[in-house]
Formats: sequence, structure tokens, C-alpha cells
Amino acid sequence: MSAAPNPSAVKAWLLQLQNDIVQALEAVDGAAFLRDEWQRAEGGGGISRLVEEGNVIERGGVNFSHVLGAKLPPSASAHRPDIGGNPWEAMGVSLVIHPRNPYAPTVHMNVRFFSTTNAAGEPVWWFGGGMDLTPYYGFKEDARHFHQTCHDALARFGADLHGKFKQWCDEYFYLKHRQEARGVGGIFFDDHSAEGFEQSFAMTQSVGQSFLKAYLPILEQRKDTPYGERERDFQAYRRGRYVEFNLVFDRGTLFGLQSGGRTEAILMSMPPIVKWRYRWEPEEGTPEAALYSDFLPHRDWLAA
Amino acid sequence: MSAAPNPSAVKAWLLQLQNDIVQALEAVDGAAFLRDEWQRAEGGGGISRLVEEGNVIERGGVNFSHVLGAKLPPSASAHRPDIGGNPWEAMGVSLVIHPRNPYAPTVHMNVRFFSTTNAAGEPVWWFGGGMDLTPYYGFKEDARHFHQTCHDALARFGADLHGKFKQWCDEYFYLKHRQEARGVGGIFFDDHSAEGFEQSFAMTQSVGQSFLKAYLPILEQRKDTPYGERERDFQAYRRGRYVEFNLVFDRGTLFGLQSGGRTEAILMSMPPIVKWRYRWEPEEGTPEAALYSDFLPHRDWLAA
Repeated sequence: MSAAPNPSAVKAWLLQLQNDIVQALEAVDGAAFLRDEWQRAEGGGGISRLVEEGNVIERGGVNFSHVLGAKLPPSASAHRPDIGGNPWEAMGVSLVIHPRNPYAPTVHMNVRFFSTTNAAGEPVWWFGGGMDLTPYYGFKEDARHFHQTCHDALARFGADLHGKFKQWCDEYFYLKHRQEARGVGGIFFDDHSAEGFEQSFAMTQSVGQSFLKAYLPILEQRKDTPYGERERDFQAYRRGRYVEFNLVFDRGTLFGLQSGGRTEAILMSMPPIVKWRYRWEPEEGTPEAALYSDFLPHRDWLAA
Repeated sequence: MSAAPNPSAVKAWLLQLQNDIVQALEAVDGAAFLRDEWQRAEGGGGISRLVEEGNVIERGGVNFSHVLGAKLPPSASAHRPDIGGNPWEAMGVSLVIHPRNPYAPTVHMNVRFFSTTNAAGEPVWWFGGGMDLTPYYGFKEDARHFHQTCHDALARFGADLHGKFKQWCDEYFYLKHRQEARGVGGIFFDDHSAEGFEQSFAMTQSVGQSFLKAYLPILEQRKDTPYGERERDFQAYRRGRYVEFNLVFDRGTLFGLQSGGRTEAILMSMPPIVKWRYRWEPEEGTPEAALYSDFLPHRDWLAA
């Protein structure tokens, strides 16, 4: 028998997760994250935690938000016509970290919970989330470690989950207009309610709590690598792809901007300095070319 | 009696316009524009003309494209259910110029022509276009000159046109998520076929041919203004708004990227260097604050 959903338990966990991640990142960086608490007129609010011009992180945010409404708009439930019109709530933690050092990859993680009722008054809810890694200079051991950690976070919840969520991530974080992956991937899931609330919540917790394990060793390892203008330039150029993905394709970003979300919090995902240039391509045989040839094409990193 | 539409006359004019504008910009800049000619597998192609790291223009492109197809997709004619399914062609010149000097404004101009037939085999066509100015540091005389030139280009085609197209521009180039105009505006029109082909074509020609008159004196006037890091920094920050508008809201950009357009040509509108930072606001009383208070709010620049 499936237990009833418990949004307040999810909320307490999300707030704890935000705190834990911010504390750990502050310890690596040395700079304190700002804290901005905000209320939403229609219900709910959030806590933005962010740092700019830190010692390690050039720009990054770890945002908690909890928004609720009296009536779910039909557009928000286009693929679930059974659930429009009733009170709803959505909550989550979303983070993007852009390190200054071009050898340290950008990372994104998100865990979220959505809850409403259907026409019969029965609870309808699901979890979503994931994390993905976007290197500028690729390291196979980093990609392997990140994917291994994602795999391990999911292993006890079902043998097929990692493969499924890994593929979902590859498909979601894809720049169709470039025919190029955003980075080396990770995991992505949505509409997840398998095996009931307790089990789905536990799986989402396992993903969220694996983030530091997945990313911190990579950040520690790369943050002090010597670099020059060449690497900074390539980083700024590649960050353009991050902007293109988030503003053209990312559903969360677009939904947030179009629905009157808190713009400055949503756009914490934008990199601090970005460059565009026409038809630029790295020279063959360079580390920059290796990103395109050896890291961006989808592959099974656990077998690599 | 209305003359039949003449796509080849429009095409010849567009190619001439592209040449004239590129030549004039090259004369101001001193650097030669690159020329990239391309074919589209489904029909048509284009000529991209662009410059990067010029003496005056940091990045800019003046693109001609002519795309055609055997069957107009229903999605392209959602608001005109009478015209889906028949052969169609679309052609235009589109330009964005990002000068290096922060006192010189970014400018955008576009003229375009669409042609197909309806179910009865009768020609259906329209013109669209416009131009708008995006200063970083505002000058009232520049905004006045730009709007006056737009006004004069339209005057002989109808007394109400400028007011209508000016408002359309204000509404179109608006960042809803910021509640902020992209710049000081200009004119915008679409679906224009009033008074028949000859008259509509003549009006569109008048707009396209007014571009140099509208923009060059401003560029000449501002391109050598002394500036420092402060102005470059503000320019890079404000360029972020240009990116946000084009990637989130601009129909031409999104349609191009989603329909397999030529990504590098479409994204010539992206600025060369862009910065984002959290909740940044200019100090009161500064020239940067004046942009927000005196230039971005919609106003009648001819009466200003």
C-alpha cells in the first residue's frame, strides 16, 4: 500500500539539502554565499543562495523555491488533462555552478516535487530531477566518476533506472540547432512516482544527496590547474552553448520566465562572461578539439 | 487594380540593399566583411556578410536569405488556415551591428517578403520588417534622429503608419520577464500588403533604404568617444538583455533555430562579449541609471 504524499517532509529535506550544499561549496570556495529570501504574491516564495566572483566559483547559485496556486493552469498539465483546475504546489532545489578555472567543469543539479489532486480529489504527484556535467576541457576520469556516482545513487531503486535516466539526460540536454550535447551528461528524470511516495522520495533524496559526492572531488581536483588566456577564451566561447540551451530549450527556464517567475533567480544559471564568434572551430589535435570528438558525443561512460 | 506580386524584383532589390549596406559599413569600419554563400538542401540559400573584431564594429552581420519549399507547414500558417500546403518562398535581409564603442548603439534592421498561394490558387503574400536602436548610453538627439528617419521613410505611404509601426515595435521588442524595453525602439511591421504589391514593396524599400540614413550618422558621431572599463563593463552587462530577448522572444531567431536554419548565420545577432550578474543596478544619478529612467521607458521621441 502506497503512503500518502507528504509535501512538508519534502520541503524540509529540500531546505536541508540546500544548506548542506551551500556549506560544502562555501568551504571549498572560501567566500560566503549571499542569501536572498523572497515571497511570491500568488503564494509561496523561495531562498536564493549565490556567489559571484568567489575564489573558486565565478558565478553560482543554489536556489530553493516553493510555489503554490489555487488552480493549476491547463497549460501546465497539457499532457495530464485529468489534473487541471485544482490547488497545486511545486518545490525544488536547483543549482548551477560556473567555476572560474576553465579546467573545472560547470555543473547543474535539480530535484523537484509537484503535487495536486485530480477531479476525484485523489492526490496526484511526482518527483523530477537530475544532474549533468559540462566540462570545457574533458577528463575521462571526471566523466566516469560523475556517471558512476549517479549510477550508485540509483542502484538500489531499480537496476534499469540509471540506464533510462542517463539516456533521458542525453536526450534532454541536447542542442538540436548545433547537433551537439551540452556536456558529458549525467541523469534526468521527470513524472516519477514509481513504487509509491516513500520510495520515489527516497530515490530523489539519494540523487540530491549524491551531488556533492559527484562534483566536489572534480572541483577540488581541477580548481587550481594553471591556465592562461587561451583556456579562459575557450571557456567563454563554450559558455555560449550553455546560454543557448537554457534560453532556447530548457523548460524550467522558459516556464519560469514566461510565468512571471523571479527573473534574477532563474537567470543565476547564466555564466558570468560569455563570448560568441562566427563559425569558430578548434584546431585538430588540440585539447579544445578533444572536447568535441571525445567528450560531447553520447557514450556509456561507465564502460569507457 | 493591384499588380501581381513579383518575387524576383524583391530578391534583386534585397541583394542590392545588402550590398549597399555592407559597402557603407565597410567604409566606416575600414575592415572588409567576410562573405559566406550557402545552399539550403530543401531549397534556396543565402549570403552571409559579417565582420568580427573590426575597427568600429566588434561583431556584426548583414544576412540575405531566400528559402523556399514545396508545401508550407501548417505551423507556419497557424493564423492563416487558408494558406497551408502550397509552395512558398520567404526572403529577406536581416542585420545586427554591435559596435565596440559603448557610446555607439547596437542596431537591428530587417526587411522580408513572404509569398505563397491559397487553396484557390490565388497569390497570398506580405512584407514585414523594421529597425530598432539599442543604446548603452542614451543620447536624446540620437533617438530623435533615428525615429525621425523612420517617420520620414513611411510618411508618403500613410499618415498613420509611423505611429502604428512605432507602437508595434515598442510591443514586440519588450522583455516581459524584465518589464523592460530592449532599447529606444523604432518601427516594426508584419503581414503588410496594404494598397497592393507595388505600394507595399515601395514602402518596404523606403524602410530598408532609410537604414543607413538612420544609423550611420549616429555611428559616426559616437564611434570615437573616449571610454574606459566602466563603459565596456556596462555595455557587456546590457548586451545580456539582447541575448535574452533574441533567444527567448524573437520569433525569427526561434523559428530559424527550430526549423533547421543556418545556426551560425542566425546567431550573428549574438553580441561578442556578454556578462551576467545578479540583481545589478546602476547607481542613481549616473549615465547608466539614465538609460533606465530616460531612454528605455516607451515615449514619443518625435515630441521629446
